[in-house]
Order: sequence, then structure tokens, then C-alpha cells
Amino acid sequence: MSSPPPYPPPLRLESDEYTTVFGDAMVYVIIFLGVVFGLFFAFYQYFQVDQVKVAKRKVGIPGSNADYLLEDDAHSEEIFAKRCADIQAAITEGSTSFLFTEYYYIGWFIFFFSFILYFLLASSDDEWNSDWSTYDVVSDYPNAYWSGREKAPAGRVALCSTCAFLVGALTSLLSGYYGMKIATFANARTTLEARKGISQSYILAFRAGNVMGFTLTSLGVLNLFLLFLVFKAHFKSDWRSLFESLAGYGLGGSSIALFGRVGGGIYTKAADVGADLVGKVEKGIPEDDPRNPAVIADNVGDNVGDIAGMGSDLFGSLAEATCAALVLSAATPLGTSENMVAMMYPLMLSATSIVVCMGTAYVGINLKPPRKMEHVEKSLKNQLIIATIVMVIASYMLTVGTLPYELVGLNIDADGNPKQVRNYEVWYCVALGLVTGLAIGLVTEYYTSSTYTPVKELAESCKTGAATNVIFGLALGYRSTVVPILGIATNIFVCYQLADFYGIAMAALGMLGTLATALAIDAYGPISDNAGGIAEMAGMGEDVRERTDCLDAAGNTTAAIGKGFAIGSAALVSLALLGSFIQSADLSAEDLSLSNNR
Amino acid sequence: MSSPPPYPPPLRLESDEYTTVFGDAMVYVIIFLGVVFGLFFAFYQYFQVDQVKVAKRKVGIPGSNADYLLEDDAHSEEIFAKRCADIQAAITEGSTSFLFTEYYYIGWFIFFFSFILYFLLASSDDEWNSDWSTYDVVSDYPNAYWSGREKAPAGRVALCSTCAFLVGALTSLLSGYYGMKIATFANARTTLEARKGISQSYILAFRAGNVMGFTLTSLGVLNLFLLFLVFKAHFKSDWRSLFESLAGYGLGGSSIALFGRVGGGIYTKAADVGADLVGKVEKGIPEDDPRNPAVIADNVGDNVGDIAGMGSDLFGSLAEATCAALVLSAATPLGTSENMVAMMYPLMLSATSIVVCMGTAYVGINLKPPRKMEHVEKSLKNQLIIATIVMVIASYMLTVGTLPYELVGLNIDADGNPKQVRNYEVWYCVALGLVTGLAIGLVTEYYTSSTYTPVKELAESCKTGAATNVIFGLALGYRSTVVPILGIATNIFVCYQLADFYGIAMAALGMLGTLATALAIDAYGPISDNAGGIAEMAGMGEDVRERTDCLDAAGNTTAAIGKGFAIGSAALVSLALLGSFIQSADLSAEDLSLSNNR
Repeated sequence: MSSPPPYPPPLRLESDEYTTVFGDAMVYVIIFLGVVFGLFFAFYQYFQVDQVKVAKRKVGIPGSNADYLLEDDAHSEEIFAKRCADIQAAITEGSTSFLFTEYYYIGWFIFFFSFILYFLLASSDDEWNSDWSTYDVVSDYPNAYWSGREKAPAGRVALCSTCAFLVGALTSLLSGYYGMKIATFANARTTLEARKGISQSYILAFRAGNVMGFTLTSLGVLNLFLLFLVFKAHFKSDWRSLFESLAGYGLGGSSIALFGRVGGGIYTKAADVGADLVGKVEKGIPEDDPRNPAVIADNVGDNVGDIAGMGSDLFGSLAEATCAALVLSAATPLGTSENMVAMMYPLMLSATSIVVCMGTAYVGINLKPPRKMEHVEKSLKNQLIIATIVMVIASYMLTVGTLPYELVGLNIDADGNPKQVRNYEVWYCVALGLVTGLAIGLVTEYYTSSTYTPVKELAESCKTGAATNVIFGLALGYRSTVVPILGIATNIFVCYQLADFYGIAMAALGMLGTLATALAIDAYGPISDNAGGIAEMAGMGEDVRERTDCLDAAGNTTAAIGKGFAIGSAALVSLALLGSFIQSADLSAEDLSLSNNR
Repeated sequence: MSSPPPYPPPLRLESDEYTTVFGDAMVYVIIFLGVVFGLFFAFYQYFQVDQVKVAKRKVGIPGSNADYLLEDDAHSEEIFAKRCADIQAAITEGSTSFLFTEYYYIGWFIFFFSFILYFLLASSDDEWNSDWSTYDVVSDYPNAYWSGREKAPAGRVALCSTCAFLVGALTSLLSGYYGMKIATFANARTTLEARKGISQSYILAFRAGNVMGFTLTSLGVLNLFLLFLVFKAHFKSDWRSLFESLAGYGLGGSSIALFGRVGGGIYTKAADVGADLVGKVEKGIPEDDPRNPAVIADNVGDNVGDIAGMGSDLFGSLAEATCAALVLSAATPLGTSENMVAMMYPLMLSATSIVVCMGTAYVGINLKPPRKMEHVEKSLKNQLIIATIVMVIASYMLTVGTLPYELVGLNIDADGNPKQVRNYEVWYCVALGLVTGLAIGLVTEYYTSSTYTPVKELAESCKTGAATNVIFGLALGYRSTVVPILGIATNIFVCYQLADFYGIAMAALGMLGTLATALAIDAYGPISDNAGGIAEMAGMGEDVRERTDCLDAAGNTTAAIGKGFAIGSAALVSLALLGSFIQSADLSAEDLSLSNNR
């Protein structure tokens, strides 16, 4: 490789060159307020769910206790409640035992991987310098903005990264576990509420979804911020080392997601197909029939795959997007300043989103809950639309308050010189991410909801057998990816032009800016799916089953929306992570070339 | 963009610096011998196929004439021959009318696209200089090897490119059309031969496949070489303009492939599923029943999709790989020499492969044809193995004879200086391509043949219904891609290290080094598939149907192998084309970077 082309000398800015509307105190105010409100709201919703009482029973589904599920034909209220309790206990037992088994193996993985991580990171620098105040990076990275500044030795960063990894992994595990707990807590209650009406039962399932959504996002932001405070006390104004250490948090989150998503996902599909094969194909009994023990496995699968797994997955995306944005901002001239408020912008954005989603949830539960069956899906969709619109406005106010008007070094112009990026241009990225997220959600709804043409046509195609169904379904699936892919590509192109990889990271955070709402309507899906199964197994009346089926149909669609968010944001996040790697390793354009052409 | 980094001054070599074993006369000898042998062999095989006589009838399938297909139960030899003739006539009529309709639209596309192509190319240079002897490229491409040499004006190159495009498109059309003709000519004959025995019927179908394979490859090489001779007389030693003009040939070939492959492919699958739906699902009659008119459409689909479409596709790959290799070699110091034999190496490689495949076909037809049913598939597989082994050896001799021992400028070393590539290193690329092609073929056979575990397990999974069948089939399909992808990735990595993009182009040509054989066993598939259908429709006896079914089963596998070759080589070809674009446009490493990082 020849020597890199001449670039302008490294830019150094003193903190007073950056003036922001908000002071450092606002960091604490916004983040703590968001987190405290979020956790309080989650607890309040849990309390509301708990108001519905299920008969207390100690059993799982040992044959002797559950026999009356099949035999007893008396439809008294008490019997129903007992049956629901029994089935719920069985699902809870199954889900808990699955997760504990999964977590046992994950535990070993975390144990060994944290050692590997530590040693890899610690050996990443030739010079392992214990006296970190003398460590100088000028000679290694002559072109970097942080050139000439002190950097902590690799061993110390490695230790902090490993700690952050462990905290991230633990938070991810807890998020998944609590999500599963509240879902299995709410499913039978949703069934029981369905006896009163569609509105009551919808509210209960959605409240439970909110418990999951707000617990996860609040915990995610809180733990990351606490870690930040601890590391800040240690690294002082060495933002680069600080944020590189913090990046372990994202890795921890997504490591667990890998297991939760794949393990849970395969289990739930295997159980689903297994239940159908045994029941429908071999024995000719209807779906969710109590005589089919695989039905419980199917319900367990929904809770461990689509709740715990999806929760870990989206938590991982959130943590990684935040960490990528932090690392990228530390590599710009911003990272040479003492301006904490501008540096913590990504975290404050997530904290703001919690408050916005809270307001949205209040509208959906208290002000405009659906009164009729056909309104259920629309109500869930409105949640996403309202949250997006409000968040676009809120993020504008946050951005102009938090970021200095001009940011240097986030991007370069056509001649390769640092370009000034305005703070509203960063907001463009966030807003574009938000809108793309909504678009993905709406397109997914269009292709998976039974109220629109595609699913109706697919149902029609089943008349000519399995072959046309499979071909048509696959074709629909491929077609449904067109708009999301174009959206994500547009996002990447525009945000990269505006603010380089930092812009892509902010678009990812924007897409996750309605995360609490997206998670709530996602978790609503498996809960109402389970509720439908319980209604069938408990032998509830036609009217109750009709209501739970309606909730279930909407739930299938919203679960698909959750997957759309997870995949869309993951695409942006992985690109942002690549960008932060490029910045951290100070790779030149030539290092990243597709060709070693002269 | 900053100015490109300083590179060593352009290398200029006089022709006498390159000494090759072969002289320029060998170019004519090898290419013409290969082409003439190939065409002669194809004609001889056609003559052999023609020895089997089918009753002459004038009809398609008008109801009045074909009625006895259903009614007549007399199994005399004459009736069989008449029935076969009728069905064959119907299939031929359908295939011809499909192709003519397709070619009508393609004709319009070619007409308009050639204008677009001409004007785009003609306007590619700011300076449209009619006096081409004064045109100088020093100022535009200061770093290129060809810097300072004369280059023809854009308008002239554009005109030649457009001519080459038209010739390529026409060759592709003819290849597809002749393939279809011989396939529909041979299918009923294969059925009739099946009455004599498995060996006779296999030989006939395989002979017909060879007609297709050798006609296509010989025509492809011949037309390209004739174009080259015409252009050479015009451009003299301006290799760069010459080969850039010639590149239109590849574009023409693959433009037609796009229509043939997609149009034919969708038609054949639609007809296949349609026939099954109407027959098996709605009416409950067996596959290939004469009462089902969609069966003819299915057979037509095989001929227009898997024969004409696949032929155009593989011809496109061959033409593009050759053109990419030519353009790439013109951009190296080789392109500043007068050494025709080294420049024409890619074409000579294809000509050599024709002779090698001819020998292989002789073994398969005359020396070791399969005597029993279970040997059919093995015999086809052996064709591929023998052709690969012989071609590895033959290509070594050709390479050391044709290329000078040291080639400068095909690759650069770690410091960015031109590196000397030995001619045997180019052979490594060819050999690796050949071996990877074989590996793809064998893996495809393993996953699609009924003699191995995967298909047997898939058949087993059908017992529990369509769902498990679809899931298992999809999973198998995904798994079958692992080895081919690893193989292609290894190919790309190794060949790029050895000889940059030129190495990748040569690996693609290597993979297509058994093209005549691969096409023959590919075309064998639809022919024996049709033969099976005709046997069923003509009401042939159990023993004949058993033989055609056996041929058909092997044919399904070999059709899949053809697709594997097409996709594998297309991956390499597209990368080689990217490389030739990079060279032609003289793009720097920075222009191709994933990041505009400083």
C-alpha cells in the first residue's frame, strides 16, 4: 500500500467552541425522567393486569388434575376459571423450564466468551502500557481527530468492555425472562376478560404488552446510563476509551439475542408444526384441541420465541445502535470536547422515546380503546402511527436542544475535507428512520393482515391445493420485501450523505424510536394467540372464542410487524457498527476498497 | 477526491519481451480445429439420431386425428409409432410457436436496445474525434498502462460494439432455437428406442444432448473469433478498442438469456403446476395422462425453458467470461504488445474444451454406455468427471504453450507495484474453476438424485403431509448451497490473489471448460423427461415406461446440475465483468471504497 493521500491536519476543538441549548444537567434530567416514568408505567400496567383474578392452583398438567378438562361439561364460571388456571400453569411451567434450560447453555457461553473477549481486546495493542497517562496514539493514527490525545491502555479498556458485555447480556436475559413472565401471566386473564367483551380483553392483552415494552426499553437505557456513569468517573474525558468500553454492552445484548431468537424461534415453529401434524393431519382434531398435548408446547413456543426471543433481539438492536452512535461521535472533533450533553444525545433520544410511547399507550388504553372487533387491528396500527408522529416532533426539539448547531467532522465534502453538519441534518436522519420504521410496519400489516387483498388472495389460492398455496405464499413473501428494502436503501443513502455512518446509526435509533410501542403491540400478539388457545382448550362458549380469535388474528399481524422492525433496524445497525469499526481502527478509504487497483 | 497516490510510471513492453512457445499461427489452428471438429461431431450425432424413424404425420393435435390416442387399444407397433409422431408434432408445434412469440418481443428489444447502446457508447467520451489516429489518452488516464497509446474514437468503438451485440444476440437466439429443435426431434425417438432397451434409448437421448452442446459451444467460439478477425483488421494493434468493441458480444448473449431463462422458466413451471392441478388435484388422473391437454404444455415448457433458455443462459456466461478476460488482458502490459497468441488465450481455451468434451462424449456413447438402469446416472456423472480431468491436463499444456512465462501487470504486490504472474499461476485459476464446477455438479447430484439420502429422506417426510415436505425441501435446498458457495468464495479469493480480476475471469472460463459436456447432460434431462411423457401418453407397455422413467429420473438430476453450472459461473463472470469495468474506466482503489473515510 502506498502512503495515504495528504489530508488536512487533524482538527482540534475546545469545548467552548460547541455551544448547546441544554446544559449537562439535562442529561440526567431527561434520561432519569424517561427511565423512571417508563418503569413506573410498566409497574402500573402490571398492577392493572393483576386485577383480573385467576383461580389459584398448584398444578402443571398432571393427568389426574386436568382430567375434567375433557370430561366435565358443566359450564359454570368457577370451572372455567379453574380450567384457565390449569392451562396457564402448564404454559408457564413449560416456558420457564425452556428458558432455564436455554439460559443454562447461554451461561456457559457467556462465561467462556467473556474470557475470550477480554484476552482478544487486551492484546489488541502492541504496547500494553500500564501507565495510561503516557500512552500516545499520534504515531499509530496520524490522521485521526483524536490523534495526540491520551488513550487508556488496552488492558483497562478490555476489562471495562468485558464488564459492559456481562451487564448487556444480563439485561438481555432479564428482558426476555420478564417478558415471558408477564405474557404467561396475562394470557389466561385475557381469555377470562373476553367473557366480558372485546374491549376489556383487548385492553388487558395490550396492557401486558406494554409491561414488556416499557420494562425492556427502560432497563436497557438505565443500565447503559449507569455503566456510562461508572466508566465516566474512571476514564474522565477520554471519550474514545469510554465509548469503546461501553460498546461491549451492545455485544452482550445481541449475543443473547442470537440464542433467544434462533433457539426460541426454532422451538416455536417445531411445536407449531408438530401440534398441527399430530392433531389435524394424524388425528383429525381441530387446532388448540385440549386432547392434543402438543398444543401446550405450541403455546410455550409463542412465549419463548416471539416474546423472550424477540425482546432480546430488539434490545440487542437498541443497545448496538446506541453504542455505535456513541463510538462514532467519539471519533469526531466532538469527542475532543468536554460537551457531555452532545455526546449523550443517542441515549437521551431513547429516553425521550419512552415518554412519547407512554403517551401513545395512554391514548390506546384509556382514551380510544376499540369497541368493536373490526377496530382491534386499526387501534394497534394507530398506536404505531401516533408514536411515530409525536416522536418526529419530540426528536426535533431534543436534537436542536442537545446538539450544537454545527458539528464538524461527521462527514467530508467532495474534496475529502471535513464538512460542517447542521444539527437539523442529524434530525433528518432520525426522522427518516422513524418514517421508514412506520412504513415497514404498515407494509408488513398490509401483507399479513386478513383485511387486505394479499391474504385474501392467498386464502383463495388454497382452494386448488397445497402447491398453489405454497407458491403464492412464497411469491407474496418476496413481494412484501420490496418496499422495506427500498426504504432501508434510501435511508442508508440519504443518511450517509448527510452525516456519514453517524447518520446511519441515528437512523437506526430513529427506527427504534417507537420501540416501546412496537414491542407492546408485538408482545400483544403471542398473548392473544395464547388466549385463543386457552379459550378453545377450556371449552369456552362460541362468543368468547369469536372474540379471542379476532384478537388472535390481529396478533399474528402485529407479531409480523415486530419482526419487520427487528430486521430493518438490524440492517442499519450492522452498517453503523461497521462504520464505528472503521473509525476506531482508523481505516482509510483504500483499506476498504473493492479492488487493489492502482 | 484528492489526487491519486504516486504510482510507478506506466510500464511499456515491446512484443519481443514476451516469448511464447506457440506462434500466432497456432491461434488459427487451435480455434478452427476445435470449432470444425465440434460442428462436425454435432452433425454426426444428429445424423445418428435421425436413423430412428418416426411415422410422418402432418398434424398437430387436432381432435379428430388424435382421438385414437384414447380409444384405440390395439398395441401394434405401427399404432405406437403413429401416436408418438402425433404427440411429438404437438410438442414441436407448441415449442416453435412459443419461441417465435418470445423472439418477436426479443426482436423489438434488440432493435431499440442496440440504438440505446450505440448512443450511450458513442457519447461516452467528451472528445468525439473523427480522426482517430490523433486521439490520445494520456491526459485522461495518466496511470493506465495503455497511457500514451492511440485509441479509436468512441463513435467507432460504439459502432463495432453494437455490431458485436447484434451478432451475440443472434448467436444466442440460434443456440436456443436449434437446441429446442433437436430436443423435440429426439424426444419421441427416445421413447421408440426405449422399446429396444435402456442402452439404446439412453444413447439416443444423450446423442441429441450432444448435438445441442457442441453446436452451441462451437457456434459461440466461431462467431466470436470471426468478429475478432474483422475487428482486428480494423483496429490493428489497438487491443483495448478491439476488445472493448468485442465485449458487446457478451452483452448480446446474456440479454437474450434474460428473456429465454425467465420467460421460458416461468412458462415451464406454470405449465407443470397447471398440468398437475388440472390432472392430479381436480380430475384425479395420473401424471402425463393423454386425457390432460396441459401435459403437452408441460412438455413444451421443458423444451423452451430448460433447453432453449438454459442454452442461451450458458452461452451468455461463456461469451461474457471470454469478453471479460479479453478486456482485462488488454488493460495489462500484454495489451501493449503485438503478441496475438497470448491475447487469444481465452478463446483457445474454449476451443480446446470442445475437443476434450468430444473425446468424453465418445467414451460415454461408444465405449462405455450404461447397460443397466441403475448405471444411467453414474454414466452421466462420469462424463463430467472425465471431461474435467482431461481438461485440467489439456489446459495446462495450452497455458504454458500460449502464455509467456512471466506476465507483468495482471496483479500488484503488497506495495502496490506490478507483480509478475507466472503462466502456471493462470493455469491454477483455470484448474480451480474446473474443479469447482465439478464439485458443484457432484453436490447438486447428491442433493437431487433419488439414489442418495437427501431425496430419500424428503420422500419419507411426505408421509406426514405437505407441510413437512415443504419445510424439509426448503431446508435441503438451503443446505445444498453450502458447498457451492464455499467453493465459489474460495475460487474468488485464490484467483484474485493469483492474478487479480483476470484470474477470476479465467476461473469462470475454467468452470465453463466442460461446457459442451455439461450442456449435453443438461439437455439430456428434458429430452428424457419428454420421452417419459410421450411413453405414458402413447400408452406404451409397463417395461417401456419403466425405462423412460429411469431415464427421466436421471434427467431431473442432470437438469439441476446444468442450473448449478449456470449460477456458479454467472457469479464468477459478474465479478470478472466488474473487474473489466474497473480496468476500462481506470478507477482507483479509492473510487471503489466502501467508505469515504479520510
